[in-house]
Amino acid sequence: MAEKLIVGISSSPRKNANTDFILKKALAAAEGVSAGIKTKAVFLREYDISPCSSCFACCNETAAKGGGNRPCLYYKDGMDEIYPLLKACSGLILASPVYFGSLNAQMKIFMDRTEGLLRYGMSRYANSLRYKVGAGLAVGGNRNAGQEFSLQQMHYFFHIHDMHVVGSGSVFRPGCYLGGGVTTHPLRGHDPKAAEEDELGIKSAEHTGKRVAYAVGMIRGI
Amino acid sequence: MAEKLIVGISSSPRKNANTDFILKKALAAAEGVSAGIKTKAVFLREYDISPCSSCFACCNETAAKGGGNRPCLYYKDGMDEIYPLLKACSGLILASPVYFGSLNAQMKIFMDRTEGLLRYGMSRYANSLRYKVGAGLAVGGNRNAGQEFSLQQMHYFFHIHDMHVVGSGSVFRPGCYLGGGVTTHPLRGHDPKAAEEDELGIKSAEHTGKRVAYAVGMIRGI
Amino acid sequence: MAEKLIVGISSSPRKNANTDFILKKALAAAEGVSAGIKTKAVFLREYDISPCSSCFACCNETAAKGGGNRPCLYYKDGMDEIYPLLKACSGLILASPVYFGSLNAQMKIFMDRTEGLLRYGMSRYANSLRYKVGAGLAVGGNRNAGQEFSLQQMHYFFHIHDMHVVGSGSVFRPGCYLGGGVTTHPLRGHDPKAAEEDELGIKSAEHTGKRVAYAVGMIRGI
Amino acid sequence: MAEKLIVGISSSPRKNANTDFILKKALAAAEGVSAGIKTKAVFLREYDISPCSSCFACCNETAAKGGGNRPCLYYKDGMDEIYPLLKACSGLILASPVYFGSLNAQMKIFMDRTEGLLRYGMSRYANSLRYKVGAGLAVGGNRNAGQEFSLQQMHYFFHIHDMHVVGSGSVFRPGCYLGGGVTTHPLRGHDPKAAEEDELGIKSAEHTGKRVAYAVGMIRGI
Repeated sequence: MAEKLIVGISSSPRKNANTDFILKKALAAAEGVSAGIKTKAVFLREYDISPCSSCFACCNETAAKGGGNRPCLYYKDGMDEIYPLLKACSGLILASPVYFGSLNAQMKIFMDRTEGLLRYGMSRYANSLRYKVGAGLAVGGNRNAGQEFSLQQMHYFFHIHDMHVVGSGSVFRPGCYLGGGVTTHPLRGHDPKAAEEDELGIKSAEHTGKRVAYAVGMIRGI
Repeated sequence: MAEKLIVGISSSPRKNANTDFILKKALAAAEGVSAGIKTKAVFLREYDISPCSSCFACCNETAAKGGGNRPCLYYKDGMDEIYPLLKACSGLILASPVYFGSLNAQMKIFMDRTEGLLRYGMSRYANSLRYKVGAGLAVGGNRNAGQEFSLQQMHYFFHIHDMHVVGSGSVFRPGCYLGGGVTTHPLRGHDPKAAEEDELGIKSAEHTGKRVAYAVGMIRGI
Repeated sequence: MAEKLIVGISSSPRKNANTDFILKKALAAAEGVSAGIKTKAVFLREYDISPCSSCFACCNETAAKGGGNRPCLYYKDGMDEIYPLLKACSGLILASPVYFGSLNAQMKIFMDRTEGLLRYGMSRYANSLRYKVGAGLAVGGNRNAGQEFSLQQMHYFFHIHDMHVVGSGSVFRPGCYLGGGVTTHPLRGHDPKAAEEDELGIKSAEHTGKRVAYAVGMIRGI
Repeated sequence: MAEKLIVGISSSPRKNANTDFILKKALAAAEGVSAGIKTKAVFLREYDISPCSSCFACCNETAAKGGGNRPCLYYKDGMDEIYPLLKACSGLILASPVYFGSLNAQMKIFMDRTEGLLRYGMSRYANSLRYKVGAGLAVGGNRNAGQEFSLQQMHYFFHIHDMHVVGSGSVFRPGCYLGGGVTTHPLRGHDPKAAEEDELGIKSAEHTGKRVAYAVGMIRGI
């Protein structure tokens, strides 16, 4: 098949810690599926991104005049580097640590800033994610501590972008069906390397990466 | 494209009431997408189906001997008529009334009896739903009364079957993103015809039907 | 304090298997909190219970005439033995195995049949659960396989009954916040004794039991 | 009863728009329950609050030395004004607009910064929310567009803080059981006054406010 890009986005504030590690595992597994799969990892902590101010300029015809090339008319910030990747990709894998049972605020700041990529968007970025493949990875301190809920929160985002949502695939039994589900604490507290020992979690992430690659290969026109 | 089957399943105990009505709307919209789309509506109340007894015979190599043609080795009941439809279809739309915030028991009885269709199944029905398209319709008495949660419960089922999960599509704004979301009470109590006046709900169901038809057309090999 | 009853309900079709075991652990822990706490375990498999037919007679003034002593006017079945326990209790702990990411159908059959206990009920059982304490236990085969979602499904039921909903309490760190979360497969397949080795899961169930007992002691008038 | 404080927190970036309006409705209803109920509204947009950096200093004994009076040892910012309110209150009502199906990032930034209020906290703020009453209000643009999911996300936060979680109470039928559920778009786009016409939504918020006041009055020792 033609070359296809899968973008992975980590929202961990901690460099090279558990969430980054898990995302890399998923992307490597995706690349292993086919020579045509390319991946790109984005680490949100390296970008300055402001929370959406709910100005609605992105979907307002008048406001958009003269700014039709930009999905967000309010902020010029790190998102301007990320929008083109979202437009270019065929698959999107989000990876977040779980804080208080759901996605950390850093991931939600990113999500909220994609309003202009919906069909109501007035720029050429409208419908950037439509029909593409979405899947998630969630890294929780404890065992049943929000991994499922965080993955469902990602899925909600994907559905609003009208994507095809996939989980970890039926190949994988003992772990997490909705995507990659990782647990760190029971073994080693806040250790940024704890995920490396969570064999089940790593497998669930790798299977999720493969599943995205399969779907990217199966869906026409993305 | 070649002919593709979308199966719709209603779990309402009430014939021709709101859930049946909404399912028919979604299936009609799906058929309208392309001449190649055929649909089949299944009404669970017309079948005698027992809840799963958790015997695990369906995924037990020894038990399956001599019974490899049947996904459930414990019960002979109405599911035997439904399994072939699940194997034959390219897309599956589930439609349930919302009871206590989630799917009614009738829908869950059906779901629980599909264990033998997973990859662990020992019959020729293993992987019957894999890679196919899944979407949901939920009919709640009140406004925010479990429609979202019920759709997520269906999505969980689809993900465990390794399906491609879709919502109502980005075409549709003012309603429900996760699928078809219908509300009946605010206007007219337990009226079995109330959904006919829920314009938003009908649209969300029709868009979901179309979205499934689009996905069935886009995904290779299903 | 005066004697208070906590009712525990298991929906497992398998006698003395993992879900029953976990429920007993939670109830024993609850009893340990105070001499005033009494518990009663109900095993749904011992009762014949039909799914709700959505006839709405339970909340229909005319239909209820002459039947005001019964919360369900349609069926005479096992629920008639369970309703008085729900009316008598101060706390309710539900325990279900996880099938396809959510509560098994057996638990949902029970839930759906409590419509007549809502405030719209026309019998003396109306508001039977109001202001009482609710908590859940979920036993999943795999690790992040619906434990969270199943507990949220129980919580939805509790909220509709206007209960005070509690989780496993902040005493407990490495496990499941929303209630008891148990995992069986990773170690030993379908072994009905696998939960006995899930130390984290047992602790989360015991803490949930204690938390319900605390809440029952703290809330006036239930 | 003695005076009790209910704190309401709005995460809307838009002053006096729909979410603020709904929060005020809920707080006014709570005050109406009893002369002993006092309320305080907090608008997060008026504070400068940084996202949690996941440094874990708040629950690290060594790091906490000499800083035991502060729940967060990393940032000095607007949270320092909010922490005392969380410690002082008996009930907490969160109000958020729904972005992409879940709480907006502004609300999650606030939530993530309460790690030091958990029992692992090393300051005198540890357990600040324990046993208190929590409830939520969610304002969505569309009808079934994340109101339920956002309320569940708040509930997850409350459960991790070991609170008693309540919904809108059984008094209220046609709306939202999990708390206040408001819809703005179907009538009037991005109009910041649209919620004023959502009668069902206003009622669900008012009932939630009352329900919190009832619970605050029923639970001993908070």
